[in-house]
Amino acid sequence: MNKKQRVALIGCGFIGEVHAANLQAHPATELVSVADTDSARAAAFAARFAACAASASQLFNDDSIDMVLIASATPTHADLLETAARAGKAIYCEKPIDLSLERACRVVDRVLHFNVPVTVGFNRRFDVSHQQLRQQLREGRIGAAELIQMVCRSSEMPPLAYLQASGGQMRDQAIHFFDLLRWLTDDEVTEVAAMGAALALPAIRDFADVDTSTLLLRLQRGGLAQLDNARRTGYGYDERISVMGAGGMLVSESQQQRGVTCYQNAQIAQPGLLPDWFSRVQATYYAQLDAFVRSLNGETVSDLPGLEDGLKAQAIAEAAVISLAEHRFCAVEKVSL
Amino acid sequence: MNKKQRVALIGCGFIGEVHAANLQAHPATELVSVADTDSARAAAFAARFAACAASASQLFNDDSIDMVLIASATPTHADLLETAARAGKAIYCEKPIDLSLERACRVVDRVLHFNVPVTVGFNRRFDVSHQQLRQQLREGRIGAAELIQMVCRSSEMPPLAYLQASGGQMRDQAIHFFDLLRWLTDDEVTEVAAMGAALALPAIRDFADVDTSTLLLRLQRGGLAQLDNARRTGYGYDERISVMGAGGMLVSESQQQRGVTCYQNAQIAQPGLLPDWFSRVQATYYAQLDAFVRSLNGETVSDLPGLEDGLKAQAIAEAAVISLAEHRFCAVEKVSL
Amino acid sequence: MNKKQRVALIGCGFIGEVHAANLQAHPATELVSVADTDSARAAAFAARFAACAASASQLFNDDSIDMVLIASATPTHADLLETAARAGKAIYCEKPIDLSLERACRVVDRVLHFNVPVTVGFNRRFDVSHQQLRQQLREGRIGAAELIQMVCRSSEMPPLAYLQASGGQMRDQAIHFFDLLRWLTDDEVTEVAAMGAALALPAIRDFADVDTSTLLLRLQRGGLAQLDNARRTGYGYDERISVMGAGGMLVSESQQQRGVTCYQNAQIAQPGLLPDWFSRVQATYYAQLDAFVRSLNGETVSDLPGLEDGLKAQAIAEAAVISLAEHRFCAVEKVSL
Amino acid sequence: MNKKQRVALIGCGFIGEVHAANLQAHPATELVSVADTDSARAAAFAARFAACAASASQLFNDDSIDMVLIASATPTHADLLETAARAGKAIYCEKPIDLSLERACRVVDRVLHFNVPVTVGFNRRFDVSHQQLRQQLREGRIGAAELIQMVCRSSEMPPLAYLQASGGQMRDQAIHFFDLLRWLTDDEVTEVAAMGAALALPAIRDFADVDTSTLLLRLQRGGLAQLDNARRTGYGYDERISVMGAGGMLVSESQQQRGVTCYQNAQIAQPGLLPDWFSRVQATYYAQLDAFVRSLNGETVSDLPGLEDGLKAQAIAEAAVISLAEHRFCAVEKVSL
Repeated sequence: MNKKQRVALIGCGFIGEVHAANLQAHPATELVSVADTDSARAAAFAARFAACAASASQLFNDDSIDMVLIASATPTHADLLETAARAGKAIYCEKPIDLSLERACRVVDRVLHFNVPVTVGFNRRFDVSHQQLRQQLREGRIGAAELIQMVCRSSEMPPLAYLQASGGQMRDQAIHFFDLLRWLTDDEVTEVAAMGAALALPAIRDFADVDTSTLLLRLQRGGLAQLDNARRTGYGYDERISVMGAGGMLVSESQQQRGVTCYQNAQIAQPGLLPDWFSRVQATYYAQLDAFVRSLNGETVSDLPGLEDGLKAQAIAEAAVISLAEHRFCAVEKVSL
Repeated sequence: MNKKQRVALIGCGFIGEVHAANLQAHPATELVSVADTDSARAAAFAARFAACAASASQLFNDDSIDMVLIASATPTHADLLETAARAGKAIYCEKPIDLSLERACRVVDRVLHFNVPVTVGFNRRFDVSHQQLRQQLREGRIGAAELIQMVCRSSEMPPLAYLQASGGQMRDQAIHFFDLLRWLTDDEVTEVAAMGAALALPAIRDFADVDTSTLLLRLQRGGLAQLDNARRTGYGYDERISVMGAGGMLVSESQQQRGVTCYQNAQIAQPGLLPDWFSRVQATYYAQLDAFVRSLNGETVSDLPGLEDGLKAQAIAEAAVISLAEHRFCAVEKVSL
Repeated sequence: MNKKQRVALIGCGFIGEVHAANLQAHPATELVSVADTDSARAAAFAARFAACAASASQLFNDDSIDMVLIASATPTHADLLETAARAGKAIYCEKPIDLSLERACRVVDRVLHFNVPVTVGFNRRFDVSHQQLRQQLREGRIGAAELIQMVCRSSEMPPLAYLQASGGQMRDQAIHFFDLLRWLTDDEVTEVAAMGAALALPAIRDFADVDTSTLLLRLQRGGLAQLDNARRTGYGYDERISVMGAGGMLVSESQQQRGVTCYQNAQIAQPGLLPDWFSRVQATYYAQLDAFVRSLNGETVSDLPGLEDGLKAQAIAEAAVISLAEHRFCAVEKVSL
Repeated sequence: MNKKQRVALIGCGFIGEVHAANLQAHPATELVSVADTDSARAAAFAARFAACAASASQLFNDDSIDMVLIASATPTHADLLETAARAGKAIYCEKPIDLSLERACRVVDRVLHFNVPVTVGFNRRFDVSHQQLRQQLREGRIGAAELIQMVCRSSEMPPLAYLQASGGQMRDQAIHFFDLLRWLTDDEVTEVAAMGAALALPAIRDFADVDTSTLLLRLQRGGLAQLDNARRTGYGYDERISVMGAGGMLVSESQQQRGVTCYQNAQIAQPGLLPDWFSRVQATYYAQLDAFVRSLNGETVSDLPGLEDGLKAQAIAEAAVISLAEHRFCAVEKVSL
């Protein structure tokens, strides 16, 4: 049996908690220490998960730590990534690498020199249904992907403060689907056109954000994709991807709650969609952790998103931001560094 | 091309009208004359369908008539069947042959001597979805039928007067499914157990009828079937048949209306079931007519229900009536003549 | 009761036949005469539908004709429209008015002076399911339309000759959805971005056509719409429209065939989508005819697409053509005349 | 906060393991000790769950134990129940109390004198979907239950040895639905008719068992119910309950796996049903444990099945066994003691 990975977690917020619980539950990981800029929070968090609280620098200098999980605020990712790499740790880093694509490129460039295992938190690759979709595409069940439709609609508007720090809908929400599109099709996006509007929360116009957006994406091998994003639906969490080829269509559907169907008069009322994004994606965090740990133990795991995947998805997001703002098509290579 | 069948229709009520429209629309039939005990009604009806009004005896004596369609009141079926057979006509007779199984047997016995083509109105055999079900069963897609579930639930309670003359839920409503069961499985029912109650319209207890009933039916080759019947649902017309075998389950589903689905809050509301039985079965009348006419023109048509099918379904209904009344299992052979 | 409209039909091709059958079936119309550039074809067609064959000019000069239905080849529409208007006939004209938007505008300008009732063949407005969608939107069931997704995918590639004369996917196929979008939302399209490719039939690149395309459309009141078009699917006819507002989502779904569901192993196989576009839209031709006839008889019918609707949908198509060709966003007002 | 219940588990088989994991996970229970007739197995089991291995008598004599969970072989249930009650423990006892209804009645009679909290393992009452069904029935959403359809079909035939000791399909499998029926309707079953056959595994005829059965059940307030049971389906685990009343129908559906839908040619293939019964019911064990613990802590918990519920469901099973064997209707009161 493989040794347990000794893990340090940086960031004790909501997503840090999700990771901590998974690290505790996974048979091949051990949550050893946690750090947070708020040391009282780190201490309470450490107590809950039977780990030690430490400073970030202590973690990096602790030779018994095998792996660092970066779940802190976005602006800290780049530095932490580089320091962790320099310290020779395996790294699971939440997306994005940095809101500035330029800075992200620079840090990736340096991190790659240290040659440590790194995965970036594009956890939706580990959605069981999306994985089946990819598998069936690769088996050629419908031929090459010609027309892809992706929907990503959250049920509830996030708080304004979250949105202000998020980098905007393209960099924060749509980016997962830029990654999914590349991964599902094994292809690259060459051109983007985007339209957006702040319909649900007009206040976000102050920082040039949108809450409703639609995108066209052209793929290198000729396929065409659409994506729409919404920050609140009024009907639950709606995430679905369909791919059409010459031989048919494969759909990874939105997921319904389970419950009672009511037949009454001229209507059949079924249980609605899952209530929120977390209900859908919760299991994917564990699955990505598991895949990463298996890869550290020598297994070949093909779906793990790496640093280059992080940069490529961010480049598409930058192109989308330009398209949104300037009402023009934007070639992805123009924004790539 | 085959000659057109010249058809006389007896009975100008609701179902007579359905048949008249089909006879008019079918390229190989011609509605020549119509009869009804109410001669004014027959005259008006004849005018609408560009046919002649006549008495029943005139029809039978008219050598130019090839086929008689009996759609008159149930108590008249037996005599009309026999007279039509004696006159050498091809006969499409609405079910049942007679509410008395004994009388039905006697008349069938005599009619068979005349060796004319006869079909009995078990039109649900011509439901496209049920036909696919039968086809797939015969192809062995799931192996032998082990467990069959049939649901027959009408949306609206028929008028009391209709019910009083109907012979009861077993002979009037369930009988179609006794026939479907035999036809779908190519098997015979040996034993019946039935429970029933007058829940929707207690007044029908006065003539020992029920509006809600559940049945178990044992098949000769070992399969088991269930049937439930209701006279009103509160949610549209619900007719469905599922068959389980060792290799899976085939379902001919209830049919929904087409329209808009509404996703709202924690609910997905779809269009309801078809509003009434006629929406579902309307097309089957034409299909049975077409099959009968094709058989008259020499084509081999395997699904046509004949006189023996009529008797066998009625024998099951009689067994069910006994089971309902006496709270006991009833062997079908005990009531067969 | 209203008098029957006496109708002349111009064009005896596939769609002419559809209209002829409807004119024959409708209780308030009478198909009196038919014309076609191929007079033998017109004669045979007239015989089938118990009408007279005539030349177009004869039709226009026949004062007993109330209404002209123009179902001839697209390049003839403009002249026939004008002549019919000049002759004071009510006009049902198949779309488009003319492949040249400029010419279409000129002829509409002239036709409007004659003040005759005209409807343009945007028959999909009469799809029962789309009509329910519009009705529910107008009732405010989900609030204002924020995000609209439209899918229009034909099952089978049309013949190359058809495509060559069609004006391209935007003017021929997508145009119905440009009209539906305006009609469903009671709003106007201001800006279009389109991507397209010839993936199914590369030969159509020779005349700059595409068979797969994706579009973004911005609405004046702020809503965003997507549309995708495909000329062949490998899985039947896929037409669906969903509209999201603050209060939920309404969907007019793709329609399935009816038949048997098979549960087997780890799969549930249902009957597929309707086999082709005509299975879905057939009933809409009759419904538009009926609405037009009712309007001629004085009823207020709000959904009838008029000449301006024809021009507006064509303007969106022109903008889409420009966007496709030039990889840029295109404002609709720039192409409107 | 309430004190933790200190729990002893008897029986270290499959279901004992399920309970042990739940006891470990539940914040208000502590698995203290485990017993099994195979003491080596108990020791290994205890080690896995950080508990002590003990003999049953040690458990009962340990005053620090608050609650006993009986998950041992069926023939031991009655004695263990009585001893645990005599020792004053709270008891969670797997069903059935005893395969002999007479013995079960005697032991219940004695256990009731000790007045300890007892729940019997009718865990399907804690299926979230069935609970919604009950809730909506109680709210009067469709009026009184008139027609109930229950399906209970396991995907895989259990081993012959299991079947031999099981007491037969009525006492082992159908019994859960006898309890669900009483609980969902708040009504009592008065009469049963059952048909059965050994179609999947004829060898079980040797001990008069069946693997496929259909039942009719009459309820005291007039409703009628159907149940069918199968031991293997060929298409996954199929458990569903529908209830019709005057106001419509409520359905707690069979549950599908999540995954990819494939549209191809004339077929739409969805992910199949859950693979086995355990996938469906797993969460109900925890939910029943939780409800029981909450009731021990003073909360009013209405759904907990008690000893009388155990007896009543068994009485229906006995009536069904008689009906199956003797081909006759059987009144439940005839078998009740």
